[in-house]
Amino acid sequence: MRVRVMGVDPGLTRCGLGAVEGRPGAPLSLVAVGVIRTGADEELGARLVGIEAGIEQWLDEVRPDAVAVERVFSQHNVRTVMGTAQAAGIAVLCAARRGLPVALHTPSEVKAAVTGSGTADKKQIGAMVTRLLRLTEMPKPADAADALALAICHVWRGGVQHRLAEAVARAKAGAAPARSRKDPRP
Amino acid sequence: MRVRVMGVDPGLTRCGLGAVEGRPGAPLSLVAVGVIRTGADEELGARLVGIEAGIEQWLDEVRPDAVAVERVFSQHNVRTVMGTAQAAGIAVLCAARRGLPVALHTPSEVKAAVTGSGTADKKQIGAMVTRLLRLTEMPKPADAADALALAICHVWRGGVQHRLAEAVARAKAGAAPARSRKDPRP
Repeated sequence: MRVRVMGVDPGLTRCGLGAVEGRPGAPLSLVAVGVIRTGADEELGARLVGIEAGIEQWLDEVRPDAVAVERVFSQHNVRTVMGTAQAAGIAVLCAARRGLPVALHTPSEVKAAVTGSGTADKKQIGAMVTRLLRLTEMPKPADAADALALAICHVWRGGVQHRLAEAVARAKAGAAPARSRKDPRP
Repeated sequence: MRVRVMGVDPGLTRCGLGAVEGRPGAPLSLVAVGVIRTGADEELGARLVGIEAGIEQWLDEVRPDAVAVERVFSQHNVRTVMGTAQAAGIAVLCAARRGLPVALHTPSEVKAAVTGSGTADKKQIGAMVTRLLRLTEMPKPADAADALALAICHVWRGGVQHRLAEAVARAKAGAAPARSRKDPRP
């Protein structure tokens, strides 16, 4: 089942957005990539209104099946973490208002999903996103590439959850779950 | 000039709301006080949608001239600070979407304005809010009292800013600013 996922790398100055479509185990395709910018000299309210308007426009145009947002921790850059958390909250709010499923993924989950290493740097992430989506050049700025990495991570992790849900459904329907083949208990 | 200010003590589990009306140097009056609650078992998106809906309803009914929101710092309780920041962001967003002026006040600014001490505890704040608004009992929960304290702080600080603006206007109009009476320079 192909899904279209929109990833959001939250931030007030640059909020990265990237949408991909695909299913686990098959090539993914790029739907859209970009960034919402607001001015550091603007008032917080105006910045949040700008981010909401940008995300709403994206949701209208991209029409994703799900939205993946980076989970923000207070260990991040203390000077900017509150604005980052607020931008993330607005992305979650906009998606939830439309009834879209929202997932939060940590930076290390995203890095591990896309590069195989939870400690990969921005350049490695950008390079893997470029390769996985068969792009001719690396998406810029890094926030845009990170948003695509989030979306890719969600398609793949969603696939795992989808397969688990299918397995549970099979078990409930009376079919033997895969585990029981190796499990000698009755 | 009387102003009606709505204060928001942000939080996901309890978001305190309180509105007062008044002007600096005159008795203040209570307009409304309450709290928006969302369940810790709900998904983040549903909680943020609930907070947005509650704040929108308050703005419709209270029709404040300005909104005052507690400024959230990352030094707060690490477990809850991200949700607190997101609830604050939604309050700022809702106000800014309506073109209402939004002010952020720190907890110590609010404590100092209401009790005279930047390190007052919840009980002192509640007691002073009760006295200043001539209530028969202390508003509960503490989040509701804190929201009223924010609104009171803003009426009073707004007053200072208003008087400064008036002084600047007088100076620009050619009247001698108050300072010059004590200032021997030409």
